Amino acid sequence: MNAADLRLPVDVPSTALFTDRYELTMLQGALRSGTADRRSVFEVFTRRLPEGRRYGVVAGTGRVLDAVENFRFDSGVLDFLAEQRIVDEPTLAWLADYRFRGDIWGYPEGEVYFPGSPVLRVEGTFAEAVLLETVILSILNHDSAVAAAASRMAVAAGDRPMIEMGARRTHELAAVAAARAAYVGGFSSTSDLAAGFRYSIPTVGTSAHAFTLVHDSERDAFTAQVDSLGSGTTLLVDTYDVTEAVRLAVEVAGTDLGAVRIDSGDLLLLAHRVRQQLDDLGAKDTRIVVTSDLDEYAIASLAAAPVDAYGVGTQLVTGSGHPTCSMVYKLVARADEPGAPLRPVAKKSMGGKTSLGGRKWAARRTDASGVAEAEVVGTGEIPAELADRQLLVELVRGGEVVAREPLDAARERHAAARGGLPMSATQLSRGEPVLPTEYL
Amino acid sequence: MNAADLRLPVDVPSTALFTDRYELTMLQGALRSGTADRRSVFEVFTRRLPEGRRYGVVAGTGRVLDAVENFRFDSGVLDFLAEQRIVDEPTLAWLADYRFRGDIWGYPEGEVYFPGSPVLRVEGTFAEAVLLETVILSILNHDSAVAAAASRMAVAAGDRPMIEMGARRTHELAAVAAARAAYVGGFSSTSDLAAGFRYSIPTVGTSAHAFTLVHDSERDAFTAQVDSLGSGTTLLVDTYDVTEAVRLAVEVAGTDLGAVRIDSGDLLLLAHRVRQQLDDLGAKDTRIVVTSDLDEYAIASLAAAPVDAYGVGTQLVTGSGHPTCSMVYKLVARADEPGAPLRPVAKKSMGGKTSLGGRKWAARRTDASGVAEAEVVGTGEIPAELADRQLLVELVRGGEVVAREPLDAARERHAAARGGLPMSATQLSRGEPVLPTEYL
Repeated sequence: MNAADLRLPVDVPSTALFTDRYELTMLQGALRSGTADRRSVFEVFTRRLPEGRRYGVVAGTGRVLDAVENFRFDSGVLDFLAEQRIVDEPTLAWLADYRFRGDIWGYPEGEVYFPGSPVLRVEGTFAEAVLLETVILSILNHDSAVAAAASRMAVAAGDRPMIEMGARRTHELAAVAAARAAYVGGFSSTSDLAAGFRYSIPTVGTSAHAFTLVHDSERDAFTAQVDSLGSGTTLLVDTYDVTEAVRLAVEVAGTDLGAVRIDSGDLLLLAHRVRQQLDDLGAKDTRIVVTSDLDEYAIASLAAAPVDAYGVGTQLVTGSGHPTCSMVYKLVARADEPGAPLRPVAKKSMGGKTSLGGRKWAARRTDASGVAEAEVVGTGEIPAELADRQLLVELVRGGEVVAREPLDAARERHAAARGGLPMSATQLSRGEPVLPTEYL
Repeated sequence: MNAADLRLPVDVPSTALFTDRYELTMLQGALRSGTADRRSVFEVFTRRLPEGRRYGVVAGTGRVLDAVENFRFDSGVLDFLAEQRIVDEPTLAWLADYRFRGDIWGYPEGEVYFPGSPVLRVEGTFAEAVLLETVILSILNHDSAVAAAASRMAVAAGDRPMIEMGARRTHELAAVAAARAAYVGGFSSTSDLAAGFRYSIPTVGTSAHAFTLVHDSERDAFTAQVDSLGSGTTLLVDTYDVTEAVRLAVEVAGTDLGAVRIDSGDLLLLAHRVRQQLDDLGAKDTRIVVTSDLDEYAIASLAAAPVDAYGVGTQLVTGSGHPTCSMVYKLVARADEPGAPLRPVAKKSMGGKTSLGGRKWAARRTDASGVAEAEVVGTGEIPAELADRQLLVELVRGGEVVAREPLDAARERHAAARGGLPMSATQLSRGEPVLPTEYL
């Protein structure tokens, strides 16, 4: 993929520097010791879910594929590495020709995961695979955290649409990835224009309090907005007095006013009052959008209120208390020499940092009625009865991406995967992972 | 500034799409209603600090200046806005010529802040200033959150150096900004090569467990690393048995081994044991680096242990429990027509969302011994006795950046500002803001 094809408001000529220095010094050491070409298998997994969470959501896979394709060391980057004496000449020469030529398998984007699920498996030489650790983890840890929060909010919101509006609460480019992950998790639109530009996610937004305040009166502001955006627009009604604003909104826009937005106060009470007022004014189709510091619990508490859409910011883009996923990228198997068979390797367990060696498969076992009952992870041959329930799919073959898909595919996959879990997955209360992980 | 001058591994031809859609629809409405040219003052502030925090740290100011300079609507962006019918033709024409020509004042980077501190003030026409809201908040909310966590960790670490190593725990570009903010807050180096490339922050790193595991033995791995990086390197000693690894490390590297790193287990116990062992082996100058899931509390608990440096990841880049700062960007004053005097405006208070209208100054009052005792914020004339204690400095004048500075200046400013606070600012326990905010 050409960088220009990314259509990001930011060109990404290379992702090679989104990398911890030690990946390059390990490469240098391995080139010297002759281990660089050893066939190696790295796996991405988590040892546990964030406390109390019932399931995780794989997100960012599409971005990982972009990052792997764009992981190249151009002259500017090589000059930097040389000037800073980060690696030696032979290593620089090796990096100049670098591109990943190995294989990547993984859980498809939107799939759910559990502790120990091998959500991504990178196989190649030690040298080519070790370099990808940092950027792969950055993407999966961030995006999956946001998608998990989005998924819980989607459960709480039921059929009501949710708008991602957290751009201002997180790094400006993390915001673009967050909008994407939120869409995978079940959000339907975003306020972030860059996310619309890059990922074709529908964008929404009409006005803030400043628009009312810059006009001489709320009437002037509403008139200006309706004049500009039409009566189907959403008017913000909590700058001064909500009741007066709702009355004025319908007076200015008529009964086909699209929506009113409430951004402060007691949302439960206000939603009921405003609905009644809108109905009394004959604006029965005017919708109510609420947007004040929502999280999945606040959304759930509004389930019985006459609310038509939720706008969510801070808690969404910061993972609702869990802004990262603790995914790790571990060498689980390698050959003793090029061409030799793979053998499992693992760090010794200490302080809870257990790793299970060996190249793994994973499958989700279901009960007689088709509901998932266990995440089964193993090495070696997969049992025949699980062979058609395997979770890993081929993403990259010999360095070529083979599994690009539209973002909607990931979004639909997530809804289906969540729907296949036991009902208790949708409980917002803290609990254990809804599926046990069994190791074979 | 030319995009190429950013020296980011990612070119930023424009920051204009890091923007919520409603900024553009407000612009369109204001152009129609004739309010677009009204002189306006927007201020960035927080209503409260994150729960229990004693002070905030302003970070990202330098990145805000870059973002404002690069906020341009090129043809690709304009085509997108037109295709999506986000704004109308007159608005597109206006955007094509856009560049910010107003003034920006703010707390200089690294300064501390409190609830109500006007950390940034943007003054210009409504149209030119409203557009900058989203990207300014993205940067300040993210970077200040990381800097605040870094500052607390710096207090806990005392004179011991801290390494930022959280790239893998956050979005790949948020990681670069996080390394920058961590440096402002007191960290001395980063694992993230992109942060070294872009901001000249010193980078560090030697090896991970994978390097040991890809070799046939720990001896082979240590030998390879010392051969590649010299005996001054840092050897990772917790892949198998720490005691055996330390013995082996000194055997392979000699007593001038630079450091050993411990990444798991009971760090307090291991640090004491390893120090004793190193001393017994004659490696009295070999340092001990610890890096396992540290936060400010863990760092503090290791104060009495023989640890020489801390590597911090997850908790740093996620703001140690507070990944964003709840800064808002509010219209506080505007003129009734071009040329008319400014008048204060504010949303009506509801549900705790209070805004104080009017263009503000801020000063930090000190007691007789020079220790800060209050953050004083006011409108109108500043009292004479506070005039030389003003906190806002000029950053942009008529669209031109006038306050670029090296990152070290912000880092030193932060250390000085924190040092000027009452001693209780350095308590890690939860408490009230260490200074009260007084409104005049």
